[in-house]
Amino acid sequence: MKRVIRKIADRDNLRLIPGLGHFSKRKSGLAPGTLVHVGEERTEPVRITVLDYDQDRVEELEFERIEDCFRFRDTPSVTWINVDGVHDVDVVARLGEHFGLHALLLEDVVHTDQRPKVEDFVDSVYIVLRMLFFQDHERARLENEQISIVLGAKTVITFQERAGDVFNPIRKRIRDGRGQIRQLGADYLAYSLIDVVVDNYFGVLEQLGDEIEEVEVELMERPTPDVLRVIQRLKRTTIGVRRAVWPLREVINVILRGDIQLFSQPTQVFLRDVYDHTVRVVDIAETFREMVGGMLDIYLSQVSNRMNETMKVLTVIATIFIPLTFIAGVYGMNFDNMPELHWRYGYWYVWGVMALAGILLVLLFRRKHWL
Amino acid sequence: MKRVIRKIADRDNLRLIPGLGHFSKRKSGLAPGTLVHVGEERTEPVRITVLDYDQDRVEELEFERIEDCFRFRDTPSVTWINVDGVHDVDVVARLGEHFGLHALLLEDVVHTDQRPKVEDFVDSVYIVLRMLFFQDHERARLENEQISIVLGAKTVITFQERAGDVFNPIRKRIRDGRGQIRQLGADYLAYSLIDVVVDNYFGVLEQLGDEIEEVEVELMERPTPDVLRVIQRLKRTTIGVRRAVWPLREVINVILRGDIQLFSQPTQVFLRDVYDHTVRVVDIAETFREMVGGMLDIYLSQVSNRMNETMKVLTVIATIFIPLTFIAGVYGMNFDNMPELHWRYGYWYVWGVMALAGILLVLLFRRKHWL
Amino acid sequence: MKRVIRKIADRDNLRLIPGLGHFSKRKSGLAPGTLVHVGEERTEPVRITVLDYDQDRVEELEFERIEDCFRFRDTPSVTWINVDGVHDVDVVARLGEHFGLHALLLEDVVHTDQRPKVEDFVDSVYIVLRMLFFQDHERARLENEQISIVLGAKTVITFQERAGDVFNPIRKRIRDGRGQIRQLGADYLAYSLIDVVVDNYFGVLEQLGDEIEEVEVELMERPTPDVLRVIQRLKRTTIGVRRAVWPLREVINVILRGDIQLFSQPTQVFLRDVYDHTVRVVDIAETFREMVGGMLDIYLSQVSNRMNETMKVLTVIATIFIPLTFIAGVYGMNFDNMPELHWRYGYWYVWGVMALAGILLVLLFRRKHWL
Amino acid sequence: MKRVIRKIADRDNLRLIPGLGHFSKRKSGLAPGTLVHVGEERTEPVRITVLDYDQDRVEELEFERIEDCFRFRDTPSVTWINVDGVHDVDVVARLGEHFGLHALLLEDVVHTDQRPKVEDFVDSVYIVLRMLFFQDHERARLENEQISIVLGAKTVITFQERAGDVFNPIRKRIRDGRGQIRQLGADYLAYSLIDVVVDNYFGVLEQLGDEIEEVEVELMERPTPDVLRVIQRLKRTTIGVRRAVWPLREVINVILRGDIQLFSQPTQVFLRDVYDHTVRVVDIAETFREMVGGMLDIYLSQVSNRMNETMKVLTVIATIFIPLTFIAGVYGMNFDNMPELHWRYGYWYVWGVMALAGILLVLLFRRKHWL
Amino acid sequence: MKRVIRKIADRDNLRLIPGLGHFSKRKSGLAPGTLVHVGEERTEPVRITVLDYDQDRVEELEFERIEDCFRFRDTPSVTWINVDGVHDVDVVARLGEHFGLHALLLEDVVHTDQRPKVEDFVDSVYIVLRMLFFQDHERARLENEQISIVLGAKTVITFQERAGDVFNPIRKRIRDGRGQIRQLGADYLAYSLIDVVVDNYFGVLEQLGDEIEEVEVELMERPTPDVLRVIQRLKRTTIGVRRAVWPLREVINVILRGDIQLFSQPTQVFLRDVYDHTVRVVDIAETFREMVGGMLDIYLSQVSNRMNETMKVLTVIATIFIPLTFIAGVYGMNFDNMPELHWRYGYWYVWGVMALAGILLVLLFRRKHWL
Repeated sequence: MKRVIRKIADRDNLRLIPGLGHFSKRKSGLAPGTLVHVGEERTEPVRITVLDYDQDRVEELEFERIEDCFRFRDTPSVTWINVDGVHDVDVVARLGEHFGLHALLLEDVVHTDQRPKVEDFVDSVYIVLRMLFFQDHERARLENEQISIVLGAKTVITFQERAGDVFNPIRKRIRDGRGQIRQLGADYLAYSLIDVVVDNYFGVLEQLGDEIEEVEVELMERPTPDVLRVIQRLKRTTIGVRRAVWPLREVINVILRGDIQLFSQPTQVFLRDVYDHTVRVVDIAETFREMVGGMLDIYLSQVSNRMNETMKVLTVIATIFIPLTFIAGVYGMNFDNMPELHWRYGYWYVWGVMALAGILLVLLFRRKHWL
Repeated sequence: MKRVIRKIADRDNLRLIPGLGHFSKRKSGLAPGTLVHVGEERTEPVRITVLDYDQDRVEELEFERIEDCFRFRDTPSVTWINVDGVHDVDVVARLGEHFGLHALLLEDVVHTDQRPKVEDFVDSVYIVLRMLFFQDHERARLENEQISIVLGAKTVITFQERAGDVFNPIRKRIRDGRGQIRQLGADYLAYSLIDVVVDNYFGVLEQLGDEIEEVEVELMERPTPDVLRVIQRLKRTTIGVRRAVWPLREVINVILRGDIQLFSQPTQVFLRDVYDHTVRVVDIAETFREMVGGMLDIYLSQVSNRMNETMKVLTVIATIFIPLTFIAGVYGMNFDNMPELHWRYGYWYVWGVMALAGILLVLLFRRKHWL
Repeated sequence: MKRVIRKIADRDNLRLIPGLGHFSKRKSGLAPGTLVHVGEERTEPVRITVLDYDQDRVEELEFERIEDCFRFRDTPSVTWINVDGVHDVDVVARLGEHFGLHALLLEDVVHTDQRPKVEDFVDSVYIVLRMLFFQDHERARLENEQISIVLGAKTVITFQERAGDVFNPIRKRIRDGRGQIRQLGADYLAYSLIDVVVDNYFGVLEQLGDEIEEVEVELMERPTPDVLRVIQRLKRTTIGVRRAVWPLREVINVILRGDIQLFSQPTQVFLRDVYDHTVRVVDIAETFREMVGGMLDIYLSQVSNRMNETMKVLTVIATIFIPLTFIAGVYGMNFDNMPELHWRYGYWYVWGVMALAGILLVLLFRRKHWL
Repeated sequence: MKRVIRKIADRDNLRLIPGLGHFSKRKSGLAPGTLVHVGEERTEPVRITVLDYDQDRVEELEFERIEDCFRFRDTPSVTWINVDGVHDVDVVARLGEHFGLHALLLEDVVHTDQRPKVEDFVDSVYIVLRMLFFQDHERARLENEQISIVLGAKTVITFQERAGDVFNPIRKRIRDGRGQIRQLGADYLAYSLIDVVVDNYFGVLEQLGDEIEEVEVELMERPTPDVLRVIQRLKRTTIGVRRAVWPLREVINVILRGDIQLFSQPTQVFLRDVYDHTVRVVDIAETFREMVGGMLDIYLSQVSNRMNETMKVLTVIATIFIPLTFIAGVYGMNFDNMPELHWRYGYWYVWGVMALAGILLVLLFRRKHWL
Repeated sequence: MKRVIRKIADRDNLRLIPGLGHFSKRKSGLAPGTLVHVGEERTEPVRITVLDYDQDRVEELEFERIEDCFRFRDTPSVTWINVDGVHDVDVVARLGEHFGLHALLLEDVVHTDQRPKVEDFVDSVYIVLRMLFFQDHERARLENEQISIVLGAKTVITFQERAGDVFNPIRKRIRDGRGQIRQLGADYLAYSLIDVVVDNYFGVLEQLGDEIEEVEVELMERPTPDVLRVIQRLKRTTIGVRRAVWPLREVINVILRGDIQLFSQPTQVFLRDVYDHTVRVVDIAETFREMVGGMLDIYLSQVSNRMNETMKVLTVIATIFIPLTFIAGVYGMNFDNMPELHWRYGYWYVWGVMALAGILLVLLFRRKHWL
């Protein structure tokens, strides 16, 4: 049975509660603020990229040593430091120390099982998002990754669990100077990052929606037991999506309430747009949940239907042939004195009776719409 | 199986999440405010109609070039500009530029997958509604279309996805000068448009209600597997209706709260009436949802009932004839020494025993109410 | 099948959404405030009764022409004008004009599909209630009727859809001068009318409760498919009752909040009592809904139980007789060389074997509690 | 069938909506404040007991005439007047008149179908509770009784529907002078009464919990149709308990909010403790409801399981013997030319074939885990 | 059956409502503040440990007599008094008296069936938590224990039901002087205790999650009736976990609101972190509840599937062999005049017909995907 579990695990690796498995073993009992990475084990080196820009110029760099990016702290231009990989706790710690980030903030960065949330540390704002994507472009392998965004006055630091993200359009826009991004400050950059993560949900939901629709058709056409397994997976996937999306609405709402100083008024207008998108994403996710939730009932109905069909076949066959077999049995008895046996056309009479009985039963079943 | 999917798609083309399919491909990663049409592909030319009126006169015009209607911006009379078709992004952009509409507003106009909402841009109010109608007057083909209403001080601009709408009674009232519409300002016109869209929901709900009632009767009388498919479609339709209607209540509530300057006090009284209607529409939609939700359970009960009936038929036939066949089998044995075979009336005795057994079993089943 | 629909319609004429069927056809697109009757078609003449009283005297009159009651507008005594029938739009319009009622108020009076609500027009308060009653005293025919109460400074105008109501005890109390009703003003009269409508719900709920209990017993004792139909009707009835009752709580709550000037402080104390009753009615209605909701599950359980019983009968009979028939079949074979056939007591031996097998199987089934 | 209803009624006499049956007949249409007893008919005389105490002395009296206790109204000591039986409306009326109680308060006292509530009449506070107890100590007969507590400045008047209550420990504490009760005022006495009623719920819930657990075990071990009836009763009992307990939380919360003058600050601390208990009682009641709600699903699963077992037995027997019987049937045919019949060991060959087929089928079923 | 109950009780001893069984018997009717232990009976002596520390030194002591720790009340250092065992009411009473704890607080300490809660007594704060752990490291035996934390100005007193807890990492941190714990006050110690209890939930939830996942796989692979029992247990376990965790969120929220003086501002920041964890724990517990809730439906689907398979086997066998047996039966009849019997190849013809019929039926079933 072990093999079966592995097989399923292979197909269903949307972790329901990401990183939970490691949590208790490493964390429990440590002093708060102690940096211990919690999440998937990784070994590749941490990659640090910096995008420093103002209205007039863009500088794009990639470092291996975290110290190399420290000089951007005090530049007057907007600096976006992106860290791919938070498993190297040391890198995060040194970065945090230099940029004056709170110990609890750093702890959450390396515990990659946070729910989406926003925390205001006055001189910096900490936002956690969860990015959804399909592993190897396979629909059954929906993964999610923690994106930490730390917004300062002139800096945005992002932490990702692994290389590869959905931020390339923003990088391109910065490089090309398209849109307003080069004119506006760090908060607009933070907004853009949130925006692109939320927009990405629509693509994920679209694929999910396609699969749900296909499974529904499958369910109607040929409800095999395998469908049950797919429904179960879809259910877990929708739970996972909801867990990533639901708290996000509140996060953006908190920013919109305007208590967080680092988000300027102009950016708020754009955030209202993101809020709208989040509401729509939640709305779609809820609709999916409802549809997947109803699938099991349909499946049950279909199984019952099929069983009913099976039973009808059995009943029709048995009801027609059991009486006929009885008649044949009667005239197979060996009594000395059975006058019918000696009738000239006795055999043909019996055939007639049996044919008649059969035809009558068939007609009866036809009237009952069983045939 | 492809053919089956298409068939179902043909019958069920209430898009659950309108325009979603296009969203990710075109939009994701673009700078906010970039105008890209998201929705059904269309090729027909955009049609622009203008109704300009005050207490004394009405002017009604139809243009092909958007620039022709620019002169109405500064007239002292109320101007209603209606744009049928938002797939020509250029038209929307030029209109928006001339009338000073916000870039995000225009973006939402051409992304025709918005939820109903209201946004206050101080010198203009942007309201999104979803109009429901039956494609080709077929009950199975409930469609929904985004109606964007932009209310200015003396202008109302409406954007529709395609030609054909429910606004003709309003046009007629304006032409005839019936009611108060010619006396009152642009906000009253905006109210009238919302009112007529909401009133239209009642007609849609009425047809939906009729279908639900017919399906319920069908369910009681002859629960075929086809009913299951219809239930599934009804479920999706009610989900779709609710998604169009539910946020509308909040929209009107926001206007009623009185923060939006462009809606004058007198119009508020009428909006309260629309609010009442919206509450009723939501109420009815919820009732439908509850009724459709319960249908699957009834279907399951019915299938179980039918199976029970089938089983009873089988059991009655088998229980009566299997013992009789056994008796016949006994006297078909070829033992040398079977005294009954040589009795004079042995054969008739056996018939008697079998008849008696049969009658007793029939009586027993009758007492059990199986026959 | 048409006939079946009519039959069910005959039995189940609690209109789920009263008047909905007429709404779209007549109303949609008309200017707001246009009076068009929406509801059941009626032809009988409108009946107007007036009860004019103060502490010392009572005057009771019945008119055919609405103008005859106009003189009561300015009397210092309390006047209760009751209009039975709102299908004659002209009567309502003239009455409204004379008493200065708002156009939207009159529109709601003749659209008899309102939810319970209260609207404050400062010099008058408009309250909509729904009266529940059993048509022809048959439990299956729960009807509901719109009662509009317009409270002015010294007048109460009530509009009913048809003759016959629950207000006779109030009329009697006014005539007899019992209780405080003659001492107190028009708002106390309005309270009394609401009170008696709410009290009437208890009677309706009592009968509903009796039926629910009977159906539950029926469900336990003999779960026939007919019960399914009754459950379905009960479900719709409870939905209907809830729709009539639920918004009422909010209505009275609004009055209790004290913003409505026309309700004096002393009457508020009594309204708090009505509020209590409304809460209780809602509470009972919810309990009924829960009980009816659970009935389908019980029905399903019962059907499964019955099927199980049927299957056991079939299995017992088949399991006992199929092996015996096999044995008989063996000794019915015509092989030349079958020594048992020639044993002296072979036949009796076989009977013995068959009897033994039968008894063993019966004992086995008894141990399994199947017999 | 009448007999069946009575039988069930005998066993399930937790009235779901107490006193409802009498409500409509007697109350509907009467002037508010008219005293009419609504509840179970009773004939025994009303019993009045008085406990008058201060720090130094206790006086305990029992009266038959209500007038005898009037003299306690103006004593400086705390007086607890307990009235067992509210069916004698006259007693309640005279008591109310002498102690200046509001007409609506007295009406609620004799209508013993109130939900738990608190009403502040400034110089008196009216609290309604529902006491739960098991009739004749039988678990199936959970009853509930209305306890009305009227708190004045120096008096507490309690009205019960019948003799016998849970207040004896309080009486004992007053007599013995244990605890603080003799030191503190009338509000502390009122608190103590509420406290003891709430504490009593725990005992009731404990018994209910025991029964639920037993039924769950029964459900797992032998899911007979009788269990279905017990589940149904448990469901109604939990609904009844929730109806008694749920509003109580709000009642105590209202008192805790501190607007009611008659409850002094020191007593508030104790009431917070009662509030805690109420929350816990509601919590447990909700858990019970959830558990009972899930039982029906388990029952259904069990019935399906059993049916599956039955079907397997039938299928195994039929699948083994039907082919064997066929073989026997073949060699029972009377063709002239059937060579096998004349083989020397033909009979034994056939036995061999049949044995082999039987064994193979048994092995097959064993592999499928059906045997 | 008794034995069965005990067996289940042995396996399922997460008490759903801890201590409830003892409540009514001992407590009901006692004066408030009377100390009576409510919970599991215990006999071992109460163990008292004291940890007294400031920045510079740590003192760790263990006492048998409670009086020995009284001297720590007035030390300027932070003192943590831990009491293992609250069954010795006398110890609790004396401790409470010396440290000036409220009678109701002490009552809740010895009634070990409290929901998590916080109560502010101004000079002390009383916090109740429930610690979850697996008895004997067996997954089926989830236990929960009441932890009472009393925070004073310089003291923290903790009461546990039995020896053994999750606080060792904190003790170690105090001893080693790691982290900030030695620098900060008693409120930080209280925070640390709450933190470690909440962190411990993650471990418990992880194990629960593993079991849920295993059961889900089991459910898919081999849905035996035993699974039903495990599901039932999981359901109760998740209910129990939710009851322990759900109120905790509110508890920490109350502290965060800042009204409680004893929690200083710096500690609040850390408590916000615990709040986050609690939200996550509640979130996971809810997800588990949803998953376990859906298992029963899957189980039912699986049972139906299996039954369908069984039915198909029976139907296939019966449908193939019943007609064949009928044919054999026909030629076993003993009519004088049956020409086929005398045909030369009659026997082989019949075999041919039977083989053909069998093959056709097999092909038919194959086309229906039954074979």
